[in-house]
Amino acid sequence: MTQKAVAAKRIVTCDPARATAADPLGVVEDGVVLFDERSVSWVGPRAKLTGGIVPEDFGDRVITPGLVDAHTHAAWVGSRHAEYAMRMAGSDYRAIAASGGGILASQRAIAAATEEAITAELASRLERMASLGVTTVEVKSGYGLEPEGEHKQLSAIARVRERADLPNVVPTYLALHALPESARSSRDLYVLRAATKLVPELGGAKLAEFVDVYVDQNAFSVEEARLVLEAAKKIGLGLRLHVGQFADVGGVALAVELGASSVDHLEHVSDADVAALGRAKIPAVLLPIASFTLGQSPPPVAKLRAAGVPLAVASDANPGTAPSESLPLALALAVRMYGLTPEEALLGATRVAAQSLGLAGPGLPRPRGMLAPGARADLAVWDLPHETAITQPWGLSRVLHVTRDGLTIHRR
Amino acid sequence: MTQKAVAAKRIVTCDPARATAADPLGVVEDGVVLFDERSVSWVGPRAKLTGGIVPEDFGDRVITPGLVDAHTHAAWVGSRHAEYAMRMAGSDYRAIAASGGGILASQRAIAAATEEAITAELASRLERMASLGVTTVEVKSGYGLEPEGEHKQLSAIARVRERADLPNVVPTYLALHALPESARSSRDLYVLRAATKLVPELGGAKLAEFVDVYVDQNAFSVEEARLVLEAAKKIGLGLRLHVGQFADVGGVALAVELGASSVDHLEHVSDADVAALGRAKIPAVLLPIASFTLGQSPPPVAKLRAAGVPLAVASDANPGTAPSESLPLALALAVRMYGLTPEEALLGATRVAAQSLGLAGPGLPRPRGMLAPGARADLAVWDLPHETAITQPWGLSRVLHVTRDGLTIHRR
Repeated sequence: MTQKAVAAKRIVTCDPARATAADPLGVVEDGVVLFDERSVSWVGPRAKLTGGIVPEDFGDRVITPGLVDAHTHAAWVGSRHAEYAMRMAGSDYRAIAASGGGILASQRAIAAATEEAITAELASRLERMASLGVTTVEVKSGYGLEPEGEHKQLSAIARVRERADLPNVVPTYLALHALPESARSSRDLYVLRAATKLVPELGGAKLAEFVDVYVDQNAFSVEEARLVLEAAKKIGLGLRLHVGQFADVGGVALAVELGASSVDHLEHVSDADVAALGRAKIPAVLLPIASFTLGQSPPPVAKLRAAGVPLAVASDANPGTAPSESLPLALALAVRMYGLTPEEALLGATRVAAQSLGLAGPGLPRPRGMLAPGARADLAVWDLPHETAITQPWGLSRVLHVTRDGLTIHRR
Repeated sequence: MTQKAVAAKRIVTCDPARATAADPLGVVEDGVVLFDERSVSWVGPRAKLTGGIVPEDFGDRVITPGLVDAHTHAAWVGSRHAEYAMRMAGSDYRAIAASGGGILASQRAIAAATEEAITAELASRLERMASLGVTTVEVKSGYGLEPEGEHKQLSAIARVRERADLPNVVPTYLALHALPESARSSRDLYVLRAATKLVPELGGAKLAEFVDVYVDQNAFSVEEARLVLEAAKKIGLGLRLHVGQFADVGGVALAVELGASSVDHLEHVSDADVAALGRAKIPAVLLPIASFTLGQSPPPVAKLRAAGVPLAVASDANPGTAPSESLPLALALAVRMYGLTPEEALLGATRVAAQSLGLAGPGLPRPRGMLAPGARADLAVWDLPHETAITQPWGLSRVLHVTRDGLTIHRR
């Protein structure tokens, strides 16, 4: 263990113990963070630093917790640029599917790729994400669709988890994403196989910490989702749901009933479901890059906020509806298009995102998404003078230096 | 001179001699570009390459001309993040100005900075722009407002022009941007001084190739613009105009009359003026990041297109209304928010942008913004399989390698 110390004009702690109504991010001005590979040991004003420690001084800059991207499909291979152009020109998913695009196009790409190729592409993507200050990334499967492909995707994700030079990866088995061609006439069996065979198999092999289902029109129903999520809950896996991206076909009540860790998208959600999420304190993971690509109206952010729903913001990185790799761009869009405040957006990409992954919360050891004694030593140094500037639409990395578990994973 | 050669699956030439209705970008598949420090000598399919040359092979990737950013205020210092948050929360320019924000805030920052500090900040910014594939950047003054400040900004811009390791810089004296406090009671003298003293002085010292004026409500009138632009034209400087960002107070007729090189913004423009621009073939420089930040409706792109107005797309990089550094992000927004096709967007950030800077056009030696024999050897290699993918909202650099004047200025 090596003790290290960094200093900067603004330490954005995101520590609930420091947050106030006037300062929801708990900023320490002219501050220092002490840490080692295990955790942060001290955060405070430079004037109170003792023990003759000389921190690495980043001057008039900002240090935040490493960002946490709580919803990505980053283990894709191939490119769906032709579909992107069609979408921009106004084509809907039916026309795109008819032209050979959509999720099934990514299924074909995964089927044709080796596990090594998927691993390499994911690792490059995670490196680029690290260059944007991201230190934890949830990565879903869901382009395998068939057992072999799902296993291959999750095995590739498991390989990058072993690397200490990339962001931490949280693997999710996206059990119900789209129905493959092969299951057109055996939909029930497809869902049942996921619930009774694949969830126990992949969960048992520790290839997934979460199970996710896509509840929407042209996707899966609440009752199909229930089968899979109950199986996942039974073996102790966390639950995530895509809900209401295109239409409200339910899903929130199921999420509340089963104690899901997150409900994601929510472009279409009823007032009653917003209230239910607020009572259950289940984080809503907002995905503004997808809204941008699809030209959609935002989710009801003011209502979610009023109901007390914790708001996370994620990239949704995927080759179709969010063909991007940038959580900071998602923050810029969340502020401009969704009306989040810069502070809400930043909490949504740090502490709340970590909470939605079970990586932060009262009493939890080594929490992420905050800079506080005992937290994991994940942090980003921004070449910017104030945290608000992080939410400007830079379109490139404004990060100088990124530390994960006390070790440098990116430096400009 | 060293002859070099690069190969890739798609060479996007943007060469008008190769362009067809079906292929407006003039793509050479499985192609090679031969070049040296002076210019490109050959572009064609690999199968036709002779002389035993072995190109550096970028495989299944895309090579484009280096991007040309035709409208930036990149020589700013300081940060206006507080103003950004106010704007996102709905404040208008009056409230922002009352709180000490706006152009006058950047004036104070320039006044307080040394020429060296401005140079250093601009150089860092240009380095980041290069990492996005940009090899030519127009940079305006306009935050000096007073003669001393304008001179300082343009001198800083001149210093970075000398550097071969950064993008080529085209300097513009933004003569009328905002009225400084000192000129509140002497507006006419302020305009007259710009026209009769500063334009000849800065132009004569070769500190500017273009003169720009901001014609809008709360900015300057057509008649004020005329004084300055006529003075600039008389000494052979090129003319650019900000027109109709907030309201249509005219400006297009003046631009046509004086033969301006570009008319920029055009969120508010009459049908008659669109037709006049089309007849004069003056490029419209579209600035979607500013529309995004300001939450504005787009310019009348369909009408501009129908009228035959050449469409350029630029970043408008500035600390207030487009607090960004990314031309590729501007392309993504142009496609999503303005309805440009990916091909139009790419031409708008290459050949048309160069044309608007007097750097491309029939018979012009060493044109930029295209890959063709005789063109300057400015090119970008994208870690993407198709040029359409360049217009996805990546939010970070997807560029592998950037060459300016035959020499590498960025490599990942």
